[in-house]
Amino acid sequence: MVSEKQFRVPGVIGGLGPEATLDFFAKLLEKTAAKSDQEHLHVIINNNPHVPNRNEAIAGRGPSPGPALAANALALKAAGADFLVMVCNAAHAFQADIEAVCDLPLLSIIEVTVKASLLHKPRVVGVLGSSATLTTHLYDQAFLKHGIKTLSPQDTAQDHFMDLLYQIKAGHKENCRLDMQHIAHDLIAKGAEVIIAGCTEVPLVLSPQDLPVPLISSTDSLVEATILYARTEGSTSSA
Amino acid sequence: MVSEKQFRVPGVIGGLGPEATLDFFAKLLEKTAAKSDQEHLHVIINNNPHVPNRNEAIAGRGPSPGPALAANALALKAAGADFLVMVCNAAHAFQADIEAVCDLPLLSIIEVTVKASLLHKPRVVGVLGSSATLTTHLYDQAFLKHGIKTLSPQDTAQDHFMDLLYQIKAGHKENCRLDMQHIAHDLIAKGAEVIIAGCTEVPLVLSPQDLPVPLISSTDSLVEATILYARTEGSTSSA
Repeated sequence: MVSEKQFRVPGVIGGLGPEATLDFFAKLLEKTAAKSDQEHLHVIINNNPHVPNRNEAIAGRGPSPGPALAANALALKAAGADFLVMVCNAAHAFQADIEAVCDLPLLSIIEVTVKASLLHKPRVVGVLGSSATLTTHLYDQAFLKHGIKTLSPQDTAQDHFMDLLYQIKAGHKENCRLDMQHIAHDLIAKGAEVIIAGCTEVPLVLSPQDLPVPLISSTDSLVEATILYARTEGSTSSA
Repeated sequence: MVSEKQFRVPGVIGGLGPEATLDFFAKLLEKTAAKSDQEHLHVIINNNPHVPNRNEAIAGRGPSPGPALAANALALKAAGADFLVMVCNAAHAFQADIEAVCDLPLLSIIEVTVKASLLHKPRVVGVLGSSATLTTHLYDQAFLKHGIKTLSPQDTAQDHFMDLLYQIKAGHKENCRLDMQHIAHDLIAKGAEVIIAGCTEVPLVLSPQDLPVPLISSTDSLVEATILYARTEGSTSSA
């Protein structure tokens, strides 16, 4: 028996949406490259989709998801998680609500995605993100620290992007790839040297081969950072 | 906001193996047929692959997974689960260890799979299961209550089946479908009118269209029973 004490246990705040959480879990198993059950990570997923809409909250049209996200984090801690990840970019606008009540470290999807994109040394990046992610400047501020400029879809292009997100969440992915590709191409035409899939629904339809510049998936970046952090030497488990 | 109090929250004892747990989660989302995040179920998955091997334990060659499974259940209860499901047939040989410490109801994968197969009114079923599942007679006893006879692979055929399971767990699925099909065909030749995929690794490689008789997937049966039980009227949530 391989002891579960060898690795830190990630707690996944999921359900935002569920398909993106499934995608994270699938990629986590794939990238772990285990040869037996026992070589895989112990991971706890709290897939709770009954959380107020992040975009409506940021737009001032609905309640804050903060309390629900904090409750999700506390449930993961109660179940034995050693650190937290949140498979949703926009929800990181409410990271402070979680950290106010839960003392587990939270690996930020924004920070790990920015870090992954630095390998390409871009001066300008194009960020595909939900309106909540854009208006709270999660990526703008994180990239600014590295002197990198951000571009995002504007007005009707962003409205169209949001329509696509809700179509993907409703399971209608088939027609979204081409439209998503067009929105990314507009940003590339304006100077983006790298495209950030800064919403976990984007990698469900858009792949690196769909674009002429590097596409950095926030989901993939979080998967890689999760595996690395879970396996870091000196890990302890409260499980 | 849709209240999470409307539905019971399933707690998934997972990681046995992780790929089967992922398959369960994917099918749960698919069969929920939700049109938005909020229509999906709140589900908590404790994917802990660091559990002693069920087959080695039953064969007397290794420690019991009972305590690890019980700890998994208690963690799910602490996180707010209202009932339990276990995505592994063989682990149900240790169901009593879980029920001894955790008072949450446990939906048995064996019972729901037997129930699903009754629709086909078989007199004889062929059970593809791990050696732990077969030697503990989990399916034999459950089918016997309905007067249904069970057949399973014997000797070298069962050894070969076990090899296939470990290949699937190691991520080598590509060559397993044909071999699994041959093992099932042998049972059909001996009189099986229905084949039970009584191991959650089997549906990862074998599909209903691969066989001339109905294939009842224990994973699919558990997914359907989970959705039904979670949505049953009068549900309460401790979350």
